[in-house]
Order: sequence, then C-alpha cells, then structure tokens
Amino acid sequence: MNFEEKTNKSKNIFEGRIIKVQLDEVTLPNGKTSTREIVKHPGAVAIIAVTENNKIIFVKQYRKALEKTLVEIPAGKLEKGEEPEVTALRELEEETGYTTDELNYVTSFYTSPGFADEIIYLYETNKLKKLEEKKELDEDEFVELMELSISEAEQLIKNQEIHDVKTAFAVQFLKSKGMR
Amino acid sequence: MNFEEKTNKSKNIFEGRIIKVQLDEVTLPNGKTSTREIVKHPGAVAIIAVTENNKIIFVKQYRKALEKTLVEIPAGKLEKGEEPEVTALRELEEETGYTTDELNYVTSFYTSPGFADEIIYLYETNKLKKLEEKKELDEDEFVELMELSISEAEQLIKNQEIHDVKTAFAVQFLKSKGMR
Repeated sequence: MNFEEKTNKSKNIFEGRIIKVQLDEVTLPNGKTSTREIVKHPGAVAIIAVTENNKIIFVKQYRKALEKTLVEIPAGKLEKGEEPEVTALRELEEETGYTTDELNYVTSFYTSPGFADEIIYLYETNKLKKLEEKKELDEDEFVELMELSISEAEQLIKNQEIHDVKTAFAVQFLKSKGMR
Repeated sequence: MNFEEKTNKSKNIFEGRIIKVQLDEVTLPNGKTSTREIVKHPGAVAIIAVTENNKIIFVKQYRKALEKTLVEIPAGKLEKGEEPEVTALRELEEETGYTTDELNYVTSFYTSPGFADEIIYLYETNKLKKLEEKKELDEDEFVELMELSISEAEQLIKNQEIHDVKTAFAVQFLKSKGMR
C-alpha cells in the first residue's frame, strides 16, 4: 500500500541556529487535506566509547528542553556537509579528551519520526588514547565526564539519571555483545 | 557540578496541533547568555506486542517529516491528562485490532533531549486477543499491519525499512530476553 502524502504547500515557521520548523499542508491517501508539523534537524552522531578498564564513557549535561541534568553517551550535531565519522571523532575528542584510530559504525536511527527528521549515526570504539592537550568544547556546552561499569550504568538507568534513548540503546547493545 | 541554565525569557514561536516551539534566552554556568530552541511535545507510548505464533506486530506508515515509509512498533501520542497505560491500550486496539488484559511497563526514554521534551513510555504484551470489531484510527492516520518473526525484523533493520530508534530498541530488547 502507498500511503504517501502529497505536499500542497510548505510554510516556514522558524529558522533557528539548530532547528527549522515548517508547517506542511498535505493531501492524504483518502484525498482529504491535513497539516504536518515538521522539525528539521541537521542530524547527529553518538559514540559508544569503552576504556581499557572496561568502563563506558558518559557525559553529564544539563538539557534545557527537559529542565534536567542527564547522563548520556557522547554525542553532537553534524556540521553542514560533514561526514558523520568526522563529526564522531571530533565530538569524542572535544567531549571526552580521548581520541581513537578505530571508530566502528554500529547503526543509524531516526529519533522522532512523527515530527522530526533527526537521525543519529552511532559509532563504537574500545581503542581509546588520551589526548595530550584537551580540545575546547563549543562555547555554550558544559559537560562533566564519567566512566562507569555496565552495572553502574544500569543503576543510572533505574534511577533515571540515564534517560535518553540513544544511551539506553547503547547500554543494551554492549550487554548484547557480552559486556559485563 | 551544577550546569543548570537560568531562563531569562521564553518566547513562544509556534503552537501547533501537536508540538509547540519556544525560544529561550538562558544564562549559562559561565555567566554568558545563549539561546535554546525547544520543541514541546505531549509525550507518547509504544507497544511491543508479540502474537501467540511468536511474531512481533509492526505498523507500516508514511512519515512526512522524513518523506519516507517506515515500519515501526505501534505507537501514539498521549492525550492531555491521559495515563500512558491508557494511551498504550488505546493505540494497540486502534492500530493493530488486538487488545490485551496484560500490558507490562518496560521503560521510558527521552528521544531527543538536545531540542525536544518528547518522552516515550514503552509497554510489552504477549497476551493478545483479536478485537471482534476493529476500532477507528485517527482520521489522518493510515497504517498497514505486519506480523514478523524476529529474524524478519532484523532483516528490515538491515535494509532500513525499520529505521527508528524505539523500534530498534524494541527488537534488541526482545533478543536480550531470548526471543528467537
């Protein structure tokens, strides 16, 4: 079955530094019209980074959209035209102070297909090297580094300090690979 | 460390049927000001439903934000003031034609904490009963039902017909519980 929705018109509502918002008028498969509220996002990467001591690297940061501090795996937005693998290495270096020669692609997924086109490209590495000089974060970014065992991470999922889906997916992924 | 960001002002940009968009001016931990682009969402549920023949129930639907058709687990938005468990049963009945007396809460997660407050409450059931009379979908909703084995679902992840994070998480969750 083809449920495609034809765009009759698209109205730009907001163009921010990060997201754009548009309101599309569409023709539905039954011929009726409706509107679709759509958030355009540049896409992002996230990195599953495991140290030689078998700890997972997390960053703790304040999320204004939630008015909460969350513990998440390192992540960041794609710059325009940037290959996800380049973004992933940059974010790893900026957020964690580690680098790597071996970044493996895991998967990609849309986070909120009902209203946003954000896609996350997920990478993993367990070949980390400390950077001699720490890189600078974006000027509006403040993060605290944490290195946790998988059981410590599971505890943080229970008490909802870890509460975002990419991080929950990452912890489940490591468990499925046999990490203990 | 406390990285909380104080809101200096909050400007309403858009108020749609589903999302609201606001632009907050904040004071950062270092005393500088910045802006945060925020999407407010009512929250949603998703349901992992497994039939007595050991098939997972999926819905195939067009996602205008992506201009793509995706295969996802059944899901839907919370009505105002509605308990997530009530939403989950309603969406299961409307989207799949099944009902259940036994809906178990799995976990919840934020999907895009960088810019949106959407939270998904995830439920599971393997005690499905066919409804005698099919319920009506929302008038702008068109979905096709699919019942797939876990290996068929994994094939759809490979070819990216399944490409959203709640569904990827659900498939991984079922595998971790030993589903084959």
